[in-house]
Amino acid sequence: MNQITPQPTVATLYLSAPVMAQLINDIGVHACLSGIADNIRADFSRWNEFDKSARVANHSKDGVIELMPISDNSLYSFKYVNGHPKNTRIGLSTVMAFGVLADVDTGVPLLLSELTLTTALRTAATSALAAKTLARPNSRVMALIGNGAQSEFQAVAFQHIVGIEEIRLFDVDPAATEKLVRNLKDSGLKLSVYQSTAEAVKGADIITTVTADKTNATIITPEMIEPGMHINGVGGDCPGKTELHTEVLSMSRVFVEYAPQSRVEGDIQHMPADFAVTELWEVLVGNLPGRQSANEVTVFDSVGFALEDYSALRFMRGVALELGMGEMIALIPEMADPKNLFGVLRSAPNALRRVA
Amino acid sequence: MNQITPQPTVATLYLSAPVMAQLINDIGVHACLSGIADNIRADFSRWNEFDKSARVANHSKDGVIELMPISDNSLYSFKYVNGHPKNTRIGLSTVMAFGVLADVDTGVPLLLSELTLTTALRTAATSALAAKTLARPNSRVMALIGNGAQSEFQAVAFQHIVGIEEIRLFDVDPAATEKLVRNLKDSGLKLSVYQSTAEAVKGADIITTVTADKTNATIITPEMIEPGMHINGVGGDCPGKTELHTEVLSMSRVFVEYAPQSRVEGDIQHMPADFAVTELWEVLVGNLPGRQSANEVTVFDSVGFALEDYSALRFMRGVALELGMGEMIALIPEMADPKNLFGVLRSAPNALRRVA
Repeated sequence: MNQITPQPTVATLYLSAPVMAQLINDIGVHACLSGIADNIRADFSRWNEFDKSARVANHSKDGVIELMPISDNSLYSFKYVNGHPKNTRIGLSTVMAFGVLADVDTGVPLLLSELTLTTALRTAATSALAAKTLARPNSRVMALIGNGAQSEFQAVAFQHIVGIEEIRLFDVDPAATEKLVRNLKDSGLKLSVYQSTAEAVKGADIITTVTADKTNATIITPEMIEPGMHINGVGGDCPGKTELHTEVLSMSRVFVEYAPQSRVEGDIQHMPADFAVTELWEVLVGNLPGRQSANEVTVFDSVGFALEDYSALRFMRGVALELGMGEMIALIPEMADPKNLFGVLRSAPNALRRVA
Repeated sequence: MNQITPQPTVATLYLSAPVMAQLINDIGVHACLSGIADNIRADFSRWNEFDKSARVANHSKDGVIELMPISDNSLYSFKYVNGHPKNTRIGLSTVMAFGVLADVDTGVPLLLSELTLTTALRTAATSALAAKTLARPNSRVMALIGNGAQSEFQAVAFQHIVGIEEIRLFDVDPAATEKLVRNLKDSGLKLSVYQSTAEAVKGADIITTVTADKTNATIITPEMIEPGMHINGVGGDCPGKTELHTEVLSMSRVFVEYAPQSRVEGDIQHMPADFAVTELWEVLVGNLPGRQSANEVTVFDSVGFALEDYSALRFMRGVALELGMGEMIALIPEMADPKNLFGVLRSAPNALRRVA
């Protein structure tokens, strides 16, 4: 919508939600998931290069709006994301997001992107990367508890990154499960529908929980756990909301993204402040062990961390530039003389006339 | 660029920098300044309704990128703003900004707007509102020290909101002053150019400092101060950077926007932690006195607070909707079923084919 001047430019690449949907379709969901997972692995592996902080949250009666900034010495990113569980009653998503990637050297916003679709991809990519690192290598069967907006992305990520072949489904809302089966009927996954969490998880190599309802406090209880299981706890975490019984956490080795944030938002919020957890990046770089035996139970207590959005935005920008997708927008004024901001107005004759 | 579905909509009104320049020209700079100042007065007067926090800063070698969120029980806003003093060397602005206004009840981003021009307006509007509240009522002469990107906005705001008739100019860079004189030659203001800060401020009712250079630590020294002066300290504040000598602060009554932030970023950063300051809103609502005598020296130690951006975004959105300016964009995907995010992809035939 705006001409770009030769250089230096302050134009911003804009990827709308419809353009992002097209981009994902064009290269394929699993290619996006793999590309984002590769970026997350690379970025988590240089963990100490990042200026990290816990998210900044503004809470209101029915929800929360959060900002999640992070930067290294070349790129800065932030995500805007809301969490409004009642939104679905009026036909809106519980979670909506967008974000920005900016140049650290100048502050110019390089990319403005939708992040509703992309958050679903990066969350699934992170879960699959953690499971590939922590689950038993021959894991083929996953129970998927909660079949809402994020569930298909988890299924496809575990299929293509971890090698899952069969997914056992349960949701308190049968319509959600039907929707998932419909969406993934041609995916190549074997999909089985169960009537309870206990039935769905029995015999699974991996349990993924992606539930949203704040009232369903505990989804996974100790008697469901079998030796060697990996539990991927994804569900919309926040203070007051957990999916895993504390005994499940006590009997497992627990891995997190960023401990200061996870101790507030994650399932480990009900554990003592000194409850031992391992940050995933330490396993990825080889500082600390992952799974230590085939019988050990591992838990990835995922809450979603700003670095995953940084990695995903970096991937999406690269693909968009390569494919020539998106458009350049003028969030920042182009100025012939950066000290003459008023001149941006003065160039239009009305400004002075009205001022005078 | 995107069709809006009847309801509920998740479309976002987008005001680019060129559209904002046109909007400001259409209604006039001083009408914008007055409208924003009115909103700031109204919003500061309900101070305790806001969920306030200090800005979140990511510092790098050459600059900083900050997020400034705030909300009440109906609207949420945040601003993205950088500060890169070296940017002008490569033809870029030191400060660039954009921001969002969102619906607190649902999290839907209602407005995405440029905030480079708008920040200059809201900063000047806040300064003028503070001066109208704190300076002697018959103030007609202002010294304007620092004639860079923000200076014309300060001049026009003080002309139209405070009643300033004559402005005495000084900048270490004569070209900056020449630019200001050129930009405001038809403004109706009497503009006088001086060779030093001391000469420019002599006899002025109000001193406004809007300097940016981090090396020019102290602009206003005690011997320049005359009884009854009001000092409007605006210059790009941050930890380590001040414009006013500490003795100037000691001899004055000091007013700030939000004390927790000003004690870190403002000129008062070098004063003891218990140095007495008054938050401007307390004066606006009548809780605390402003100026108490014609001889008192008052200082507004302005650093820029998130609430001013909230007020400005609220004003700009209102004007844009009234004039039908801007365009609707699709930052958030429109979904027939909010639980079926994957369906946004599936509607394009490629998604499944590639997944399968």
